[in-house]
Amino acid sequence: MRAPEIIQRKRDGLALSEAEIRFFLDGYTRGDIPDYQMAAMAMAIFFRDLDDDELAVWTDAMLRSGRTLAFPEAPGPCVDKHSTGGVGDKVSFVLAPIAAAAGLTVPMISGRGLGHTGGTLDKLESIPGLRVEHSPEDFQRLVLTHGLAMVGQSADLVPADRRLYALRDVTATVACIPLIAASIMSKKLAEGLQALVLDIKVGSGAFMSTPDQARALAARMIAIGERMGVRTRVLLTDMDQPLGWAVGNTLEIREALDTLQGGGPPDLRALCLELAAEMIHLGGLRPTLTLARELAAHTLDSGAAHARFLQVIAAQGGDLTRLLPPAPCALPLPSPAAGYIAGFDTTAVGLAAVRLGAGRTRAGDPIDHAVGLVLHKKRGDAVAQGEPLLTLYAHTPDALPLLRDDLLRAIHLQDTPPEAAPLVVDRLG
Amino acid sequence: MRAPEIIQRKRDGLALSEAEIRFFLDGYTRGDIPDYQMAAMAMAIFFRDLDDDELAVWTDAMLRSGRTLAFPEAPGPCVDKHSTGGVGDKVSFVLAPIAAAAGLTVPMISGRGLGHTGGTLDKLESIPGLRVEHSPEDFQRLVLTHGLAMVGQSADLVPADRRLYALRDVTATVACIPLIAASIMSKKLAEGLQALVLDIKVGSGAFMSTPDQARALAARMIAIGERMGVRTRVLLTDMDQPLGWAVGNTLEIREALDTLQGGGPPDLRALCLELAAEMIHLGGLRPTLTLARELAAHTLDSGAAHARFLQVIAAQGGDLTRLLPPAPCALPLPSPAAGYIAGFDTTAVGLAAVRLGAGRTRAGDPIDHAVGLVLHKKRGDAVAQGEPLLTLYAHTPDALPLLRDDLLRAIHLQDTPPEAAPLVVDRLG
Repeated sequence: MRAPEIIQRKRDGLALSEAEIRFFLDGYTRGDIPDYQMAAMAMAIFFRDLDDDELAVWTDAMLRSGRTLAFPEAPGPCVDKHSTGGVGDKVSFVLAPIAAAAGLTVPMISGRGLGHTGGTLDKLESIPGLRVEHSPEDFQRLVLTHGLAMVGQSADLVPADRRLYALRDVTATVACIPLIAASIMSKKLAEGLQALVLDIKVGSGAFMSTPDQARALAARMIAIGERMGVRTRVLLTDMDQPLGWAVGNTLEIREALDTLQGGGPPDLRALCLELAAEMIHLGGLRPTLTLARELAAHTLDSGAAHARFLQVIAAQGGDLTRLLPPAPCALPLPSPAAGYIAGFDTTAVGLAAVRLGAGRTRAGDPIDHAVGLVLHKKRGDAVAQGEPLLTLYAHTPDALPLLRDDLLRAIHLQDTPPEAAPLVVDRLG
Repeated sequence: MRAPEIIQRKRDGLALSEAEIRFFLDGYTRGDIPDYQMAAMAMAIFFRDLDDDELAVWTDAMLRSGRTLAFPEAPGPCVDKHSTGGVGDKVSFVLAPIAAAAGLTVPMISGRGLGHTGGTLDKLESIPGLRVEHSPEDFQRLVLTHGLAMVGQSADLVPADRRLYALRDVTATVACIPLIAASIMSKKLAEGLQALVLDIKVGSGAFMSTPDQARALAARMIAIGERMGVRTRVLLTDMDQPLGWAVGNTLEIREALDTLQGGGPPDLRALCLELAAEMIHLGGLRPTLTLARELAAHTLDSGAAHARFLQVIAAQGGDLTRLLPPAPCALPLPSPAAGYIAGFDTTAVGLAAVRLGAGRTRAGDPIDHAVGLVLHKKRGDAVAQGEPLLTLYAHTPDALPLLRDDLLRAIHLQDTPPEAAPLVVDRLG
């Protein structure tokens, strides 16, 4: 078996055999197959796709490139959630404690933010003392003790994905649905899950900008899950506006804490409960989704989820009493006109937060956990002229003139109330 | 300007600007753009092609990756020929002396054989003492003195092509018409030509197996030549059978010498004269092709071409009095039946010669200049049962049983004479 011939078969639109895919990915993992052959293969896949059988083998071979986790002594079924990322998405901090307090085991491995979206690990690091780097043994112990840990990816988990992702980033092969699906699924299934709930964002702040693209990605990930024996459900959810009100690291942790204590923005609460219900149902703790929704709501409203969050944060070294305050300059952005909020260029809102320092444009850049913005108006809300649309949190007042035009362009006003848009656009799998 | 964005534009089917192409190829030449980005680009070009304007810039950027030649003091117009390669193709040894003796300047840079086709340099090295490696200054001097030199490519001539070709070979991007066209044209136009005649082989022994593919390649090379100010003509010529009778290094040099002395196989003589006439006409030595044909024939038949060949070989250190004899075992292959030769699997004939040792399957392998085969029958010839189809020249008699079945499968017999097939299939440019 020779690598160029395997590339050529894919180039010519033929399906690769299991042996060919394993030869190629195992060779890549060992370093026998160099980056230039993988780059040609990735571009060939961009044009020729992988079918569902090829994709499951590809994902499995990626997953086996490093250590995999398993929790045979876990207190409950192992279930996790993955989101494709958006603006203001602090769901994990509410959802994961609900799921764990309801009886699931949630070995949550997350990433950092890049571009217009924030990252779970960056947000967590607004909590002084909190550590997201743990040895596999520590991670195991945390998960078994608390039913939940929220950590970063260790170097030995799916190393082929790290290398392949870096390569795709510089070879114009990121926007390739089968490779996106394999990347997400290999990392999540390396956690040793029984079930997985995927939150694919759609809309102006999402990587998949149309529902059709999102459904295509969903179908590929469900097919991988099926073939690998992991029950997989996908919700397509609205990212045509930021989720909740807060965008920026400590602001989002604060909003998650409010939500865990019964407050918080209604859309955030609703989405956390819905995704938690899917996890509970898929994990088999409740036989119907309706009963699962009841358990999720009870777990949140009883304070059990909040208590679990405090316990997990403390176990990971975090001190919430010293949670970083927002940046000192609170700068309201007044509306230039009266009207109704028709919608957002959500990516532009996210990029405004990045310009404040809340995110990064290049991997490895430092971020400022204190800055960000809080929306006062969301889609459908009425606004009077001069009424604040949002408040920026910055270190100096000149942040407002710097970002005003971009933000006003990103918030669309109209004279009449817009049609209501659903939070959950579709449910698949 | 960033490399991934340029790859992405090509991936998405957009035309690249001159600045983008030069940025990419100059970066590749300098080593700033690594092989993995070029591999992704080559695969994107495989699927999306380059238009004629892009291709001319690509070729020019390749050509400028190293030293280029120029012969302002040349005794005549600088014109060369390139062949896409076939079995038994010893045209250069007859054609180039005709062209030089007719008054053209022919700075002929050639390659080595790989796979089923032989290489000009390998064949030349059947002549003891002959050197094909010359410094650019030596090459210049030889060309100016004799109107002709036949040498190998020095490391500083189109280095980007050497690196890109090696990369394409291992990334399944060899069979890509614009990249083939750019590779050939960049190397030939680096010779500083005023005109170029291309011999694109078609048929069972050619890289382009159909006339349509060959015409597509021809059109791309003519377009490059036009845009770069080099008159370019293409002949599509028959490679459905070996050219001439001899296949193998010293056997082919001997056949070329016969042809230079008025003998040799009729198809070889005819093709050499036709290509020489195109060179003479394109170079402007004669105003019509008919007059150019007369000059070519006169140059050959007068012995002027033969004399020029002897002079050039001597100038490059070769001693034709010690020309390597064929291998000692002459092994005739009798025909299993009576009939007419319908045609050949010409690639299989070439590969039989490779198995004898006349060629190589991997670049850098040594070759045996003495072995090969000589056909006694060609397409349309009648053959009696038991009459020799060809003679193998080998070092031991067991070569015949080893190759008999392959060779008999490669020579197609039928009961009736086949239709005549033209030697020159088409003429373009």
